[in-house]
Amino acid sequence: MLQISMSGICGTDKHTFRGEVMQYAGTPHERQIEYPLICGHENVGQIAAIGGEVLDSEGQPLAVGDRIVPAANVNCGQCWYCRTGQPYYMCERLEDYGNSLTCARPPYLFGGWSEYMYLLPGTRLFRVPDALPDHVAVLTEPMAVTHGFDRARRLSETFGEAVVVYGIGPLGMCHLIKARLMGAGALIAIDRLPSRLRRSEEFGATLTLSAAELEAEELVARVREATAGRGADIVLDCSGAPETFVNSLHMVRVGGTVVEAGAFVDMGRVAINPTADICTKNVNVLGIGGETAQAYRPAMRLLERNLRTLPLDALVSHRMPLEQAEPALELAQRDEAMKVVLTPTD
Amino acid sequence: MLQISMSGICGTDKHTFRGEVMQYAGTPHERQIEYPLICGHENVGQIAAIGGEVLDSEGQPLAVGDRIVPAANVNCGQCWYCRTGQPYYMCERLEDYGNSLTCARPPYLFGGWSEYMYLLPGTRLFRVPDALPDHVAVLTEPMAVTHGFDRARRLSETFGEAVVVYGIGPLGMCHLIKARLMGAGALIAIDRLPSRLRRSEEFGATLTLSAAELEAEELVARVREATAGRGADIVLDCSGAPETFVNSLHMVRVGGTVVEAGAFVDMGRVAINPTADICTKNVNVLGIGGETAQAYRPAMRLLERNLRTLPLDALVSHRMPLEQAEPALELAQRDEAMKVVLTPTD
Amino acid sequence: MLQISMSGICGTDKHTFRGEVMQYAGTPHERQIEYPLICGHENVGQIAAIGGEVLDSEGQPLAVGDRIVPAANVNCGQCWYCRTGQPYYMCERLEDYGNSLTCARPPYLFGGWSEYMYLLPGTRLFRVPDALPDHVAVLTEPMAVTHGFDRARRLSETFGEAVVVYGIGPLGMCHLIKARLMGAGALIAIDRLPSRLRRSEEFGATLTLSAAELEAEELVARVREATAGRGADIVLDCSGAPETFVNSLHMVRVGGTVVEAGAFVDMGRVAINPTADICTKNVNVLGIGGETAQAYRPAMRLLERNLRTLPLDALVSHRMPLEQAEPALELAQRDEAMKVVLTPTD
Amino acid sequence: MLQISMSGICGTDKHTFRGEVMQYAGTPHERQIEYPLICGHENVGQIAAIGGEVLDSEGQPLAVGDRIVPAANVNCGQCWYCRTGQPYYMCERLEDYGNSLTCARPPYLFGGWSEYMYLLPGTRLFRVPDALPDHVAVLTEPMAVTHGFDRARRLSETFGEAVVVYGIGPLGMCHLIKARLMGAGALIAIDRLPSRLRRSEEFGATLTLSAAELEAEELVARVREATAGRGADIVLDCSGAPETFVNSLHMVRVGGTVVEAGAFVDMGRVAINPTADICTKNVNVLGIGGETAQAYRPAMRLLERNLRTLPLDALVSHRMPLEQAEPALELAQRDEAMKVVLTPTD
Repeated sequence: MLQISMSGICGTDKHTFRGEVMQYAGTPHERQIEYPLICGHENVGQIAAIGGEVLDSEGQPLAVGDRIVPAANVNCGQCWYCRTGQPYYMCERLEDYGNSLTCARPPYLFGGWSEYMYLLPGTRLFRVPDALPDHVAVLTEPMAVTHGFDRARRLSETFGEAVVVYGIGPLGMCHLIKARLMGAGALIAIDRLPSRLRRSEEFGATLTLSAAELEAEELVARVREATAGRGADIVLDCSGAPETFVNSLHMVRVGGTVVEAGAFVDMGRVAINPTADICTKNVNVLGIGGETAQAYRPAMRLLERNLRTLPLDALVSHRMPLEQAEPALELAQRDEAMKVVLTPTD
Repeated sequence: MLQISMSGICGTDKHTFRGEVMQYAGTPHERQIEYPLICGHENVGQIAAIGGEVLDSEGQPLAVGDRIVPAANVNCGQCWYCRTGQPYYMCERLEDYGNSLTCARPPYLFGGWSEYMYLLPGTRLFRVPDALPDHVAVLTEPMAVTHGFDRARRLSETFGEAVVVYGIGPLGMCHLIKARLMGAGALIAIDRLPSRLRRSEEFGATLTLSAAELEAEELVARVREATAGRGADIVLDCSGAPETFVNSLHMVRVGGTVVEAGAFVDMGRVAINPTADICTKNVNVLGIGGETAQAYRPAMRLLERNLRTLPLDALVSHRMPLEQAEPALELAQRDEAMKVVLTPTD
Repeated sequence: MLQISMSGICGTDKHTFRGEVMQYAGTPHERQIEYPLICGHENVGQIAAIGGEVLDSEGQPLAVGDRIVPAANVNCGQCWYCRTGQPYYMCERLEDYGNSLTCARPPYLFGGWSEYMYLLPGTRLFRVPDALPDHVAVLTEPMAVTHGFDRARRLSETFGEAVVVYGIGPLGMCHLIKARLMGAGALIAIDRLPSRLRRSEEFGATLTLSAAELEAEELVARVREATAGRGADIVLDCSGAPETFVNSLHMVRVGGTVVEAGAFVDMGRVAINPTADICTKNVNVLGIGGETAQAYRPAMRLLERNLRTLPLDALVSHRMPLEQAEPALELAQRDEAMKVVLTPTD
Repeated sequence: MLQISMSGICGTDKHTFRGEVMQYAGTPHERQIEYPLICGHENVGQIAAIGGEVLDSEGQPLAVGDRIVPAANVNCGQCWYCRTGQPYYMCERLEDYGNSLTCARPPYLFGGWSEYMYLLPGTRLFRVPDALPDHVAVLTEPMAVTHGFDRARRLSETFGEAVVVYGIGPLGMCHLIKARLMGAGALIAIDRLPSRLRRSEEFGATLTLSAAELEAEELVARVREATAGRGADIVLDCSGAPETFVNSLHMVRVGGTVVEAGAFVDMGRVAINPTADICTKNVNVLGIGGETAQAYRPAMRLLERNLRTLPLDALVSHRMPLEQAEPALELAQRDEAMKVVLTPTD
């Protein structure tokens, strides 16, 4: 049982709240979510009660009072995906806090927008270092989604000379931080909001482009200009909207990689040109629906190590009490917000 | 100077013949092709004359009379792509026989649809083993394009339990052979032509599906049926048409890989769903425009090693003299043809 | 409960029989084996009884009478290695049939040298295709150890132009078959026994070298001769003796890879030259102690697919009844034997 | 023609100076170095004269006055290694400044311990950013050798929870910096000299162990203590002495990776246990003789990006005029020195 200190609001939550639920119709992954449920999968809190020996991710025993980040998902260990060693996220019977784990099932408390949260056996638990405050530790899960950047670097067979981050919400910001720390050269941030572009510069963007002021073709032209005409090695598309995928394919260089990150809801179709923009250009596309179990610890460490060198304190822009969950959800979609968190036990 | 024994007709050639030429507008790769030119980049022949010491791919000296397959492309060694060790195919100043190398440039003979062909210094030259006849060696270049299958296997983090080959022209057939030899489990061939599906079975397909008889959704349903509901680990889309990309994304399993292979001409747009079909599904897409320099030798060896165990003799379906190049080009697009080759010096 | 049809004798078994047991002193992997125990981890058999729903590796339910190969090891799913997604073989609390699983623990029957064998929950179970006879299916586990060859190919960044297999016992033979099927060019077999070298040729070796007739330096010279002076891309050291490691480092080319495969017992020390033979030469060395869970299915399929093209029937050289286990163990170490198996229920 | 600002003294230089020259006897890489020669391959300087168009690594034209780091090696582009896309360092006819390029060959000036240095056509040239001072830019080449750490991380299939750097000379310090920036957890430095261990802490080591005070077994025990008993994920052996290889194999965890880095001279043999310490433990060993061409730019960028967050100014401990090359060489081997550089044109 976890006493929640902070629980982040993720872009997926607004869709869950509205009842827009992703399905993989016709496959073993297909699912229906049963309401009511308690949202909240980006959590940090203190252990309030514990049943038997429970180990952290390092194999060390946990005790009441320990501060942890629990993994957002629990895999079954039995299905084809689990048996063949695929990322835990692909489990056919995946249980995810704040989504599939609804109030239909005792003990009901399976989301972080709550004072207490129950954790299923088998949940991976990551101990938070003392130096890492709650309002940074709460970013561990979105930061863990940036494992897609590591995969992209291998595919492009370069270190990542030029990287575009397309959409600088909390997930885009995590990708920008990761690219910056891993050594990107030109680091280009694109967003509609001036406030987000300014923040990108504080985190190391070498060029910012306003999607509000520039047409799609102009954005492409400016990216090429900044990359000796070639385009970017890696485009990290974190916009959550399908239209940016088209433009991402134009911005990336021949042989480069586009990462489609973090969107978990059907946002509709767009027209692309597979022969000209993927095949002939030798472009790679990676769909990264979420984090992996292995990505939590490095993500947490990366945050801890850069507390003094990066303005990480500023990423949580708003803290709201539990009773204001609904206005908080609205706020999370507005311009002035970066990451909005609920603080159920403040 | 190479005396051409055989030169294959590739799908790209009909577009080159019609003057439909691929461009990367606005990038360092942009190009215009100047006519006239001599087509033919899938070549095998005998060295007729040689200037100074010329080494084969193994570093051994070549002599007049040696039988070789020359690489289809020559890279500059100087541009950003060449300097950073990218595949030779991505060179910004790529010279490719039968395409960019036109008759505008002495000594003019830069294509294989000709009795003799001039090879530029720096062209990689692959010695043909004695046991490998011309009509199989001529398949080395398309077989080398299947390096995309190797990349796909690594990305999917499985050995390739279930593989779909979509479109069983000569390139699709090469992919089917490669998947079969590398150990695919379920090996599913899809095409419109019954003759091609029958041939697929001779080469090891475990299931054939007629795109003429089944609707797109039925094809997806049949692939899932054959894969415990999951979909294929790898879909090798060799159709050359953009529509199959949509369906490939539906046929592939969560976390699987779609290879868009071998299309080198702008075939127009199709509507896809990036969030539902790529991001949430964690799908990888690999654009494989052509072969790599490193893929020739393994491709040639794979053909040599399986001369007795596979009916490779049947892949060249028609041999035509040089003066019938135009009807040969028509024939290559008809149902009864698999690979059509010209035999300039017969 | 499995009714054992065949259980192979592995090189490790003779050490277990003698009480020579591997330990990782001073680490979480340290262990003591408690006798008595029932040997036998290379098993094939029929399900005789089943408790509740049990799924095969594909997620399909198993029934009494189904023929399966059970994985040799069971991992805990809880330790640091299991939690971080390492190969199951590295589990800190690994249970392995015929070794750590002794008769100290009910229901006692944890090895394949027995009429019936009990399988722990969580054991991965691989259904044997009808076409695959027991005497080939029994090779699945050693064939699964050849995953090291796949890793070596990636490291050497070539397809494997020239491969040496050093020591052609059953494990070496599996590696030779794998290298042959995956497309090795020069395929060089080294052993002391003429019978094993002859057999290597039947399986595709392009050169055989007698370690009984040639000195170590001569072996190196002959390998270089066959590889344009460079040495082999990959050396698969399957001898089980430490001395061949020294020579493997000399046979491999600059930038090549040496695989140390399948030895599971401390065989003592040898003097090597780390700066000259590893560092300056940019050589990679991979220790491959055993198979991975993911390697069973591809291994089984590879055997099934090549039943007609390779003389796989000949690999099991001797079948012995259970009561002759001790002479069988002796036989397995003699010249005339390839794989010796016990047939407990014949 | 380059006017040298600074040229570093590398551990290899003392051996070259003494005439102890590495050979690959009996292979295409075998070589004899002919004296006299001018040492110096870690160079930074200004272009003093230029012949025709010369491009930097980004494909941009260079001009007189531009500040650059030239790559230490020039590959032929023709041999088997170059043709198959291997790292440039493995070229069979490699020319390396300050070593194979001796005064036997006009225009003679092929080393950085000289006021001017001639650069062969084909030398990769890396433009130094304005913000990066000479005394940090001169570390680009040794920092580029740390590409081995990137390879090790992939092999160990973890992000690098626990990393040991064994030997904290300039190369070890570069590895420690790289591991720190890429996100290592426990970062353990081992050296004989207290001054080097103190410096390691300034650069982020979380534990320092004195090889002067602790026996080999104690060092292993302390590393295991700091890693929950497992041992390190990655051991970066930068000592240049063969003895540490033995201990590195003991310090690394099951399935971990040992990097043998930067030693370029035959330092003799040591006894190791291949079955117990490599095979059964599933350990990977990577020999990293030097840098790759692709590693220069990321190395330079990493230095530039961390000028304010790391005390990089302190890594060059001594600057000496050209006429004191011999005492500088002595100094470079003494306790108080980190990197010693010559400043030929001060």
